[in-house]
Amino acid sequence: MGELTMPRQPAAQSHRPRVVIVGGGFAGLHAAKSLALLPVDVTLIDRRNHHTFQPLLYQVALAVLSPADIAQPIRSILRKQSNTQVLMDEVTGIDVQTRQVALASGTQLGYDYLILATGATHSYFGRDDWAPFAPGLKTIEDAIEIRRRVLLAFELAERQMQEQGWHPPLNFVVIGGGPTGVELAGAIIDIARLYMHHDFRHIDPAKARVLLLEGSPRILAAYPQDLSAKAEDQLTRLGVEVRTGTQVTGVGPGWVEAGGQRIDAVVTLWAAGVQASPLGKLLGAPLDHRGCVVVDDSLNPPGLPEVFVLGDLAHIQQDGRQVPGVAQPAMQMGDHVGRVIAADLAHHPRPAFRYFDKGDMATIGRMAAVAKVEWPFKAHWSGLPAWITWLTVHIWFLIGFRNRLSVFAAWIWTYFTFTRGARLITGDQHLPGWPGPVTSSPEKGSGAKP
Amino acid sequence: MGELTMPRQPAAQSHRPRVVIVGGGFAGLHAAKSLALLPVDVTLIDRRNHHTFQPLLYQVALAVLSPADIAQPIRSILRKQSNTQVLMDEVTGIDVQTRQVALASGTQLGYDYLILATGATHSYFGRDDWAPFAPGLKTIEDAIEIRRRVLLAFELAERQMQEQGWHPPLNFVVIGGGPTGVELAGAIIDIARLYMHHDFRHIDPAKARVLLLEGSPRILAAYPQDLSAKAEDQLTRLGVEVRTGTQVTGVGPGWVEAGGQRIDAVVTLWAAGVQASPLGKLLGAPLDHRGCVVVDDSLNPPGLPEVFVLGDLAHIQQDGRQVPGVAQPAMQMGDHVGRVIAADLAHHPRPAFRYFDKGDMATIGRMAAVAKVEWPFKAHWSGLPAWITWLTVHIWFLIGFRNRLSVFAAWIWTYFTFTRGARLITGDQHLPGWPGPVTSSPEKGSGAKP
Repeated sequence: MGELTMPRQPAAQSHRPRVVIVGGGFAGLHAAKSLALLPVDVTLIDRRNHHTFQPLLYQVALAVLSPADIAQPIRSILRKQSNTQVLMDEVTGIDVQTRQVALASGTQLGYDYLILATGATHSYFGRDDWAPFAPGLKTIEDAIEIRRRVLLAFELAERQMQEQGWHPPLNFVVIGGGPTGVELAGAIIDIARLYMHHDFRHIDPAKARVLLLEGSPRILAAYPQDLSAKAEDQLTRLGVEVRTGTQVTGVGPGWVEAGGQRIDAVVTLWAAGVQASPLGKLLGAPLDHRGCVVVDDSLNPPGLPEVFVLGDLAHIQQDGRQVPGVAQPAMQMGDHVGRVIAADLAHHPRPAFRYFDKGDMATIGRMAAVAKVEWPFKAHWSGLPAWITWLTVHIWFLIGFRNRLSVFAAWIWTYFTFTRGARLITGDQHLPGWPGPVTSSPEKGSGAKP
Repeated sequence: MGELTMPRQPAAQSHRPRVVIVGGGFAGLHAAKSLALLPVDVTLIDRRNHHTFQPLLYQVALAVLSPADIAQPIRSILRKQSNTQVLMDEVTGIDVQTRQVALASGTQLGYDYLILATGATHSYFGRDDWAPFAPGLKTIEDAIEIRRRVLLAFELAERQMQEQGWHPPLNFVVIGGGPTGVELAGAIIDIARLYMHHDFRHIDPAKARVLLLEGSPRILAAYPQDLSAKAEDQLTRLGVEVRTGTQVTGVGPGWVEAGGQRIDAVVTLWAAGVQASPLGKLLGAPLDHRGCVVVDDSLNPPGLPEVFVLGDLAHIQQDGRQVPGVAQPAMQMGDHVGRVIAADLAHHPRPAFRYFDKGDMATIGRMAAVAKVEWPFKAHWSGLPAWITWLTVHIWFLIGFRNRLSVFAAWIWTYFTFTRGARLITGDQHLPGWPGPVTSSPEKGSGAKP
């Protein structure tokens, strides 16, 4: 390709420790920031160009927010941190002997410290054939696909009603009663009952049914019993049918088999299993049953003091309990890495990581949430107070002033006007298992890949 | 699928004229609104669920705005218009004898009036094999694809520079010097020079080259000569290399052949040809060379007084000139249909359509634009005054208070902080023709279609 362009900066000074961070989620970003003032050269690698604020991903899936409201280019977030560079690439191998990571683009990158923070993804418990019929929610692309399916179901029903006088029952099935499942179920019933009913002439969107299926005896199993009960009560009042103790035994196009019964479903969403990123395996260190790397209180796997594993990928015990795979401990682990490396550089003993639990929250729907407060006082909240706390905390932790402003404005708008700002269907117009006639898809534009 | 759901409204009264509108762009939407108070039953059909505000589409492509900022569900826009229903479907046939349209979903829909407003798409002048290498800009999906390619080019260059010490020249080639081509070229040079240079460590984004290729002797050929010259001057000052009189003879992965020369291009964009929607052909009426339906001053094709053709799909002469295929005449034609049908219902003679030209504008870049003002006075503007006029008019015509607010906020933010709010790369990480090593794509999430 002719002319080459030469580097604008000299090669990195080789005497400074090289820190390679893999993953730009909460843990990886906090790790990078914790190293900002240390004499180290940091490279953060992520296969995406953006950090995603996962706690609000379900609001992209349900058309409240735009993807850009909760995502920011990682290199923009770290633009002012002069000892840090960002690389969009994928790690395919780790050699802990020679201290190198192999990248998908073909090169090797040496490290003095390696920080693995590649998180977790959903697991179909070995039934990956269910995936096309029940998408999960981990990435911006997942959220756009869920939005497409949910909005499309109403459009197809309206069309079929007008043209043929009938439509399949608008059953939405959410599998898994953890925080994500609860959020999705509540948000679907909200959009159906509160946001769409003026828009359709032939169907009544408010008649949509939302079923939340949970295998264990209660939803939000990680929360105290009273909050689980309150969450179930609030969901039921919103109109969600909660079925606990219900094992899903099959998922197919247009149906779910659960508790020995076949349920018709125009859209099925998966919020059930979580498994660790496969990168953990490359270390050769002990893993737990979900593939998480077991680490000590310096966040190192046994015998690898120069390797840190953080966030959802780490398995760490504290007071006989496993530290949960949520945002708070991920951020704290990221912050801790900076303290450990600073101690190393100063030849001090390493500090031990301790998760400081400020509490936990799950949102359920409009003005409904549950919160287990641990700090600055202990309390169990539900309903409006929990919901307002949830809103405040999530605005606060969003990265970037612009995103905070834009999410705040979107929320004010949504909650006062009962309209959702991002009701876009992009991509094709096919729903797996839709029983009516199928139409061709809109032209894909000329942007089709070769 | 068991239980059927019954219609919530009785069947439409059959004695009221049935108006079928095909297309929810400017012309179709204005036609629907012009019929709001008439005793007719309106069905607006579009294969997408949303109206797109096309004049700002290039700002989605260049990461200033989010897709939802410039798109709104058609059924939300028309939710309060009780004589109107919206159908997401595609018209595949028109029978002007029996007055029926055939839909992709398999049914037929009868009409008393048919309004065709399906617009135009880009044309590769018979070279559709160029499409994968040079996407055009007509839909939200197109804009997201262009955004992906432009942002990805910088990421791949940064990676390759870091890993191998060289990268291909960051040449962006825009083919076509009409308003869209000018906007795209100006916006790419803006993002490269003003918005990204703090974010990269190894490459200098400001060294990117943007080439605008135009076959005819001047850019913005539909504008007066002085404004063309001013636009070229402003583009050149921003850093765009404008090459007029340059015919493109080939487009491939990573290159463009133009003026007998092969130009390396990491991203090529197509803004050259326009062809009418294929629906015009189904009428059996006379077409012009681009496939537009030739209509009289009631907007009817010869011999079909119950069929109206509007917007970019219509060819109408006025004062010896063809009415241009832009937003203003499309809206005015839509408004006119209501007057014609009202006249019919009152047994009055039909009024004649006359395009009232208030002027035309093209934006070029930050604080740069040209405007040909026709009303309320005549003037030719360029630079800052034209740019401010452009901003004001576009905010004004955006549909929906929320979108206006959100676009206004995004602009203020962008222009004062020099950051772009929607710098998201979604989808895969492949650029056609990128000369360096290729990496695997990120996992597509579980939302993959079956």
